[in-house]
Amino acid sequence: MPAPAAGPFRSEHDLLGDREVPAAAYYGVHTLRAVENFPITGTPISAYPDLVSALASVKEAAALANRDLGLLDDRKVDAIAQACEEIRAGRLHDHFVVDVIQGGAGTSTNMNANEVIANRALELLGHERGAYGHLHPLEDVNAGQSTNDVYPTAVKLALQLAAARLLEAMEVLRQAFAAKAEEFADVLKMGRTQLQDAVPMTLGQEFAAYAVMLDEDRARLAEACALISEINLGGTAIGTGLNAHPDYAALACRHLGAITGIPFTVAGDLVEATQDMGAFVQLSGVLKRIAVKLSKTCNDLRLLSCGPRAGLAEINLPPVQAGSSIMPGKVNPVIPEVVNQIAFEVIGNDVTVTFAAEAGQLQLNAFEPVIAHSLLKSIGHLRAGCLTLAERCVTGITANREHLARLVEQSIGLATALNPHIGYEQATAVAQEALTTGAAVHDLVLAKGLLTQEQLREILHPDNLARPHTRTATTARA
Amino acid sequence: MPAPAAGPFRSEHDLLGDREVPAAAYYGVHTLRAVENFPITGTPISAYPDLVSALASVKEAAALANRDLGLLDDRKVDAIAQACEEIRAGRLHDHFVVDVIQGGAGTSTNMNANEVIANRALELLGHERGAYGHLHPLEDVNAGQSTNDVYPTAVKLALQLAAARLLEAMEVLRQAFAAKAEEFADVLKMGRTQLQDAVPMTLGQEFAAYAVMLDEDRARLAEACALISEINLGGTAIGTGLNAHPDYAALACRHLGAITGIPFTVAGDLVEATQDMGAFVQLSGVLKRIAVKLSKTCNDLRLLSCGPRAGLAEINLPPVQAGSSIMPGKVNPVIPEVVNQIAFEVIGNDVTVTFAAEAGQLQLNAFEPVIAHSLLKSIGHLRAGCLTLAERCVTGITANREHLARLVEQSIGLATALNPHIGYEQATAVAQEALTTGAAVHDLVLAKGLLTQEQLREILHPDNLARPHTRTATTARA
Amino acid sequence: MPAPAAGPFRSEHDLLGDREVPAAAYYGVHTLRAVENFPITGTPISAYPDLVSALASVKEAAALANRDLGLLDDRKVDAIAQACEEIRAGRLHDHFVVDVIQGGAGTSTNMNANEVIANRALELLGHERGAYGHLHPLEDVNAGQSTNDVYPTAVKLALQLAAARLLEAMEVLRQAFAAKAEEFADVLKMGRTQLQDAVPMTLGQEFAAYAVMLDEDRARLAEACALISEINLGGTAIGTGLNAHPDYAALACRHLGAITGIPFTVAGDLVEATQDMGAFVQLSGVLKRIAVKLSKTCNDLRLLSCGPRAGLAEINLPPVQAGSSIMPGKVNPVIPEVVNQIAFEVIGNDVTVTFAAEAGQLQLNAFEPVIAHSLLKSIGHLRAGCLTLAERCVTGITANREHLARLVEQSIGLATALNPHIGYEQATAVAQEALTTGAAVHDLVLAKGLLTQEQLREILHPDNLARPHTRTATTARA
Amino acid sequence: MPAPAAGPFRSEHDLLGDREVPAAAYYGVHTLRAVENFPITGTPISAYPDLVSALASVKEAAALANRDLGLLDDRKVDAIAQACEEIRAGRLHDHFVVDVIQGGAGTSTNMNANEVIANRALELLGHERGAYGHLHPLEDVNAGQSTNDVYPTAVKLALQLAAARLLEAMEVLRQAFAAKAEEFADVLKMGRTQLQDAVPMTLGQEFAAYAVMLDEDRARLAEACALISEINLGGTAIGTGLNAHPDYAALACRHLGAITGIPFTVAGDLVEATQDMGAFVQLSGVLKRIAVKLSKTCNDLRLLSCGPRAGLAEINLPPVQAGSSIMPGKVNPVIPEVVNQIAFEVIGNDVTVTFAAEAGQLQLNAFEPVIAHSLLKSIGHLRAGCLTLAERCVTGITANREHLARLVEQSIGLATALNPHIGYEQATAVAQEALTTGAAVHDLVLAKGLLTQEQLREILHPDNLARPHTRTATTARA
Repeated sequence: MPAPAAGPFRSEHDLLGDREVPAAAYYGVHTLRAVENFPITGTPISAYPDLVSALASVKEAAALANRDLGLLDDRKVDAIAQACEEIRAGRLHDHFVVDVIQGGAGTSTNMNANEVIANRALELLGHERGAYGHLHPLEDVNAGQSTNDVYPTAVKLALQLAAARLLEAMEVLRQAFAAKAEEFADVLKMGRTQLQDAVPMTLGQEFAAYAVMLDEDRARLAEACALISEINLGGTAIGTGLNAHPDYAALACRHLGAITGIPFTVAGDLVEATQDMGAFVQLSGVLKRIAVKLSKTCNDLRLLSCGPRAGLAEINLPPVQAGSSIMPGKVNPVIPEVVNQIAFEVIGNDVTVTFAAEAGQLQLNAFEPVIAHSLLKSIGHLRAGCLTLAERCVTGITANREHLARLVEQSIGLATALNPHIGYEQATAVAQEALTTGAAVHDLVLAKGLLTQEQLREILHPDNLARPHTRTATTARA
Repeated sequence: MPAPAAGPFRSEHDLLGDREVPAAAYYGVHTLRAVENFPITGTPISAYPDLVSALASVKEAAALANRDLGLLDDRKVDAIAQACEEIRAGRLHDHFVVDVIQGGAGTSTNMNANEVIANRALELLGHERGAYGHLHPLEDVNAGQSTNDVYPTAVKLALQLAAARLLEAMEVLRQAFAAKAEEFADVLKMGRTQLQDAVPMTLGQEFAAYAVMLDEDRARLAEACALISEINLGGTAIGTGLNAHPDYAALACRHLGAITGIPFTVAGDLVEATQDMGAFVQLSGVLKRIAVKLSKTCNDLRLLSCGPRAGLAEINLPPVQAGSSIMPGKVNPVIPEVVNQIAFEVIGNDVTVTFAAEAGQLQLNAFEPVIAHSLLKSIGHLRAGCLTLAERCVTGITANREHLARLVEQSIGLATALNPHIGYEQATAVAQEALTTGAAVHDLVLAKGLLTQEQLREILHPDNLARPHTRTATTARA
Repeated sequence: MPAPAAGPFRSEHDLLGDREVPAAAYYGVHTLRAVENFPITGTPISAYPDLVSALASVKEAAALANRDLGLLDDRKVDAIAQACEEIRAGRLHDHFVVDVIQGGAGTSTNMNANEVIANRALELLGHERGAYGHLHPLEDVNAGQSTNDVYPTAVKLALQLAAARLLEAMEVLRQAFAAKAEEFADVLKMGRTQLQDAVPMTLGQEFAAYAVMLDEDRARLAEACALISEINLGGTAIGTGLNAHPDYAALACRHLGAITGIPFTVAGDLVEATQDMGAFVQLSGVLKRIAVKLSKTCNDLRLLSCGPRAGLAEINLPPVQAGSSIMPGKVNPVIPEVVNQIAFEVIGNDVTVTFAAEAGQLQLNAFEPVIAHSLLKSIGHLRAGCLTLAERCVTGITANREHLARLVEQSIGLATALNPHIGYEQATAVAQEALTTGAAVHDLVLAKGLLTQEQLREILHPDNLARPHTRTATTARA
Repeated sequence: MPAPAAGPFRSEHDLLGDREVPAAAYYGVHTLRAVENFPITGTPISAYPDLVSALASVKEAAALANRDLGLLDDRKVDAIAQACEEIRAGRLHDHFVVDVIQGGAGTSTNMNANEVIANRALELLGHERGAYGHLHPLEDVNAGQSTNDVYPTAVKLALQLAAARLLEAMEVLRQAFAAKAEEFADVLKMGRTQLQDAVPMTLGQEFAAYAVMLDEDRARLAEACALISEINLGGTAIGTGLNAHPDYAALACRHLGAITGIPFTVAGDLVEATQDMGAFVQLSGVLKRIAVKLSKTCNDLRLLSCGPRAGLAEINLPPVQAGSSIMPGKVNPVIPEVVNQIAFEVIGNDVTVTFAAEAGQLQLNAFEPVIAHSLLKSIGHLRAGCLTLAERCVTGITANREHLARLVEQSIGLATALNPHIGYEQATAVAQEALTTGAAVHDLVLAKGLLTQEQLREILHPDNLARPHTRTATTARA
């Protein structure tokens, strides 16, 4: 191992001149300037470990492809590959320091990766950091590459890694709802449309619907992820592939697939693929879809648990903290509330992604960093929300069975079930009288001699109301 | 009056060549081409009478200013002014035929106005339509003007006219809420936070809040309108005022003020004013604010009237139509629902305005037509929503007084009022026991000897609960 | 045919009482009340012929299913089916008069359809309009149905019909771009990233990318449409299927498929399907994706044609109208501009759809009308935009070939191609010197003896620059 | 000072039972539960120092008001006030650990503040942390308060603190543009509308417009801030003021004003003020306005500096880092690009705020935390963007004066200036001939004998073109 740098700094050079870089830093002058240029959020890209790992995978795949093509010698490639592996193991994340919101289409992120990998590889090769004559961040680590193909490819990989965990979390939540659906399968209750009493159903059906929604959303998310497995690696600056070997794209893609286990494919038109943000917009749209439905579900949970005494009070959410600094004993639906807020954030992020995507010009979209930032945030927060909702809320929900049963009995909505038997107009009259007088629909129908006790028992039997398709229609209208 | 055109068409000319224009049309070749170029929505600009009238006012003001400066002779000016007056009277609106969504920063709308005014003025002067040698749409009607100062000025005037009617409609709605606030001033009910029972209040306080919100929103809308009384008339193409007399801007502005009764002012920097969409974005933001709060209010009305038997059932909305094609007797909150939808549309329009405003480039924003379209739609629909909500819903609302009173008595939220007397921790214990056992807070406190009957009567007196500031605190904690 | 109604009005009855309906109207009392309740936009649902036709198809399918089940006699079914056919033929659209923005989850639209069909069917059966004793809008036309299954099904069908035409229009536009891509296949030009000169490409590659984008967007739109072929017909009020025969859903779906030629399927969980707006949100997201990319494409066209003398001036858009009321000879990119505005509207509509979808509560989303309105608007306007862009702009675009060639020769971006031959740092020095001195990259490299004339000719050959993958790399770096 | 807790934990109690809290923590059991319940973003509220400081100020003001009312003894108040002062000095920020996105309307943030202040005050009073018998987080620190009045008040104060710094940053940027406007006051250039050459102006006018825009936006931001100086402190849970002394609101507000120097006022209707998010929506709208215009300005800067050789190349942005990992010598407009991205984020945040505001129900909006999070992020990032843009971009901009002058000379847009002298139609013909033949407008007019050399010199004099209002019109048209 060579002697350490004389002082705590080493000197590096770029087209703007010389700069002192901390000797201990794996990053170099390009990263340094980026850190100075973009003091925006204070959050470094290391906040997205998936992105850092993804960069390492892409760089390794590129190096291996260049080796295959005889464009990079084995010693360099080995050192680069080992450095990349260490990054994926989480060992050098602290050196990915540029801000998550940055100008330059991801150039600074790519430069940061090039420099950290080069300096770590130099160490592995027995050289000092900064001794780029032996192995160069741009000419070697970035060989045959451009930010414009490396960065979007890394972002797509990072999104896949993150989305896989979101899919798992959604499945945890789906199962929580499905378990409740089973538990509540026999709990009869009033269904509501437009917040007005409608017709009976079971609480199990209500919860099953939430499970089914999540299942469909998972399918949509998986489809959207498939769209981002098409990459433009090998297109270099604008998709024409200038400076990349003709076989490079296919080789690099194959290596990336091998490293990650994800079936990446090379886009058919690399010029188009380099500038097109369509797959990100689509993914964001699907995340928004998930958010919208999670939010709707949480609205329902909050509504159904409205109470304890002056509300619907159909279900009870498990208490997880004291609800109020002034109202003793108050317990609030804080878990659904936090999921609502995540949903609102994701919906806002979608607008950010939309704006950034639309702002692309000519051969490139310079605003990919904020697209990546928004999507990774949305995915991460949705995942946290699903898990929290499942574990701290849904699994502990209980039903107020007697209250629910009583509401069905008193309900005017039962008149709907009489429709095929006494007609819409007759049923309307009964419903109106029930509402005015407070009488029960059942009693009114009997008193008016519209149906017999026997018929009513059959028609209003819980099973017939909530799962009418198991019974046979008694009368056909002509 | 000259002989009518020989055939059903007359020939007109522009830089692309000759075209046949229907002889009966007041518009000319520029309008014709625009109609062909923009077959987008099928809705002509005459759908916004305020915009058509505003164009006429701006054109008249410009003609009068040019007359004052000796740049246009009296005969022409009189004819132009009379044509403009006729337009404001609604007589020629049918000839404003270009699509509400159009390319060209409003050029086609301005051209449409120039042509209709010129041809009507020609008639008034005893010439045939199309005889532009006598009075020219561009050289006379548009003298000293550019689309880029005329169009935004007309849009601002149109918005003022429309907003004035929205302000009136908001006042109608505010009064409706205020009347209910008075009617319900003595109706005690449980207030709710986070959809959980909180502490008592009156239904009057609840409705008063809606009235106050509207009052504040009206103030904000009035402020936003004041911002759009600053105009760039006289800036011509890019704000430098090329081809306009140095005194023109001030004169035209003064005439416009006289014609409309609105105190317009000339912007301080016309270059900036020509490209700046800030005042439109701000107005859109305020419309969105109004929409957000109207929507929240309608959500509340729907929630409070949720029932009739399985919901909160605190208030009743007047039935305005049968609610269901299948459920007899069902009445739905359709009026609040339609207002919610208007709000969602306005919020979407705000995003459209935002996008269009951001897309301006250099000295002009080419996307003003969709900004105008969005704002005029938002204002018009909000106005319709406020009136419908006031007249078909709010004024007919009734309260279920006994039900509300019963809920207060049973409430655990009463424990909050005991806080200053028995402490938060003690009150929490009481609240939890009440919840578990179903006992009343009042009874538990008495049974535990925490407070006397007398103290409880004082503390839990309705007036003290809902308007605590009229009582004196009984104990101070140290 | 029976004698006409005595006066110009007939009396109809609903749960609110009696009302006079114009005798000539095919609609009835429910529609009348809805028209009075929702005076919002002034645009009736007949503005969406696809929706009116779709309602007729759904009603016919329902009637046929009821006939199969013996629930509706053949005479009634035949009359209903014939009325529905007439509606699809466009003969009764004028009687679909409720506002496009309406409260009530589509109830008023469904009622409007029920009433028009019933009254026309009554006529066909030889009865007077309003003689509902013979054939009833609710008990017969709406038999086994609820707004909550009929309306979303009709909206989905309408969207499919509209989307099919959008797909065609996108294909027209794609072909226009593809034709230009071929025409410009040999036009070398500078590619740009981040609005800075990058590396060479052909204008053909640039236009091909637009064609490819449209192709991908078409694929996504087709997928989103497939998602809305899953329907909830048969679920009735809340998805439990109350009042519908167990076999009704499958039968009605099959009939609907036969009538429309679209392979509809019954949703697996009808409770979920009744409340879930996910497929609409997804479709809206895809429409937004299309909008974003169309807008980006139009931004590019406007940018590339910026000039005529002080801009990029790479291409010329065909003039379609005079561009200015003050600047003679000015021609503006009004067609791309109008497409930009359509895109901004679609993006705003997506936010409206998002809000409306999130606002659904419990077993239903009451805000489907504004979702339908927004989606149908977006699809219709996008279609108009694609056709206008293809026919009035893209097909007439010409290239300024010499100007483009000159820019490539002068370009500093050529230095990139030297990268693999002289290294990034050396190439940077050359580029900087070229920029400072104004010298050509080619000359500097030669003067410095970095490469030979022969090497430079090979490296900088147009084909090698724009389609580098056809050449063989001359040197491999180690 | 009492002996330290025996172990590394102390036991605390809430309505859910006992929990071990780290002995070193100033926070307590409520905070602990919140940290466990909301593992969403990983960002604690201490990321917003303004919010933490604001909480301390509100708590101090409340304590002082309670002292004035004889409700809290001096010893306790002194300890609380000193703890609050320490927090404002930044000494205890690390103990504000709940997530920025949290359920519960800010309860957990308020609880976190109550507990940190209580424990620090206990220490100051010589007690152990957790010895709440001596001074209680809820009964003392939170006396007379509710999260529902404390939290929004603290958020408003935090926003004021943050906005004040944004106003300063905007002023720095405004001055940078104004300085450039002066520097470029004599640089003649072509103005552009719709990206087409329009009429001449100076580069100084162009930059002055950016300065003026910022000035107007600053005025709007100041107005929006004034709206959030109206607070609901004293309203307690729902605005009725239950458990607060009648004089408390006015006293607390006065103390808060004294502590902060900001002229807060008590809202007129505390019930309304407690639930109303209008002022936040308005502020967000103004931030969006600022973002939209900053983004437009940055778009312009990127467009004007497009080049170096194949673009407009009117101005040069100072290079701040190497622009590409593949293209040597490339320098990109990374600073404007990062500001664009901030703007996109702010616009997305506005949608999040809108959603959260609309979702409020009845007496409270449970989603204030995400509103606060979004607004504080927007303000902070906009501030960073303004400073970066000023310091790293605008101040270093240079103009390509000769190139600009040449473009004006060659321009066809000069024909506009001839309009008042030779008429729109004549001028159009000249412009078209110039475009077709490549001839100069000046030469064509002279050759055709339309104007004399002398007249042309006068009309086309730079000062007359860019600042026409300093000349006298030579001819009046009649």
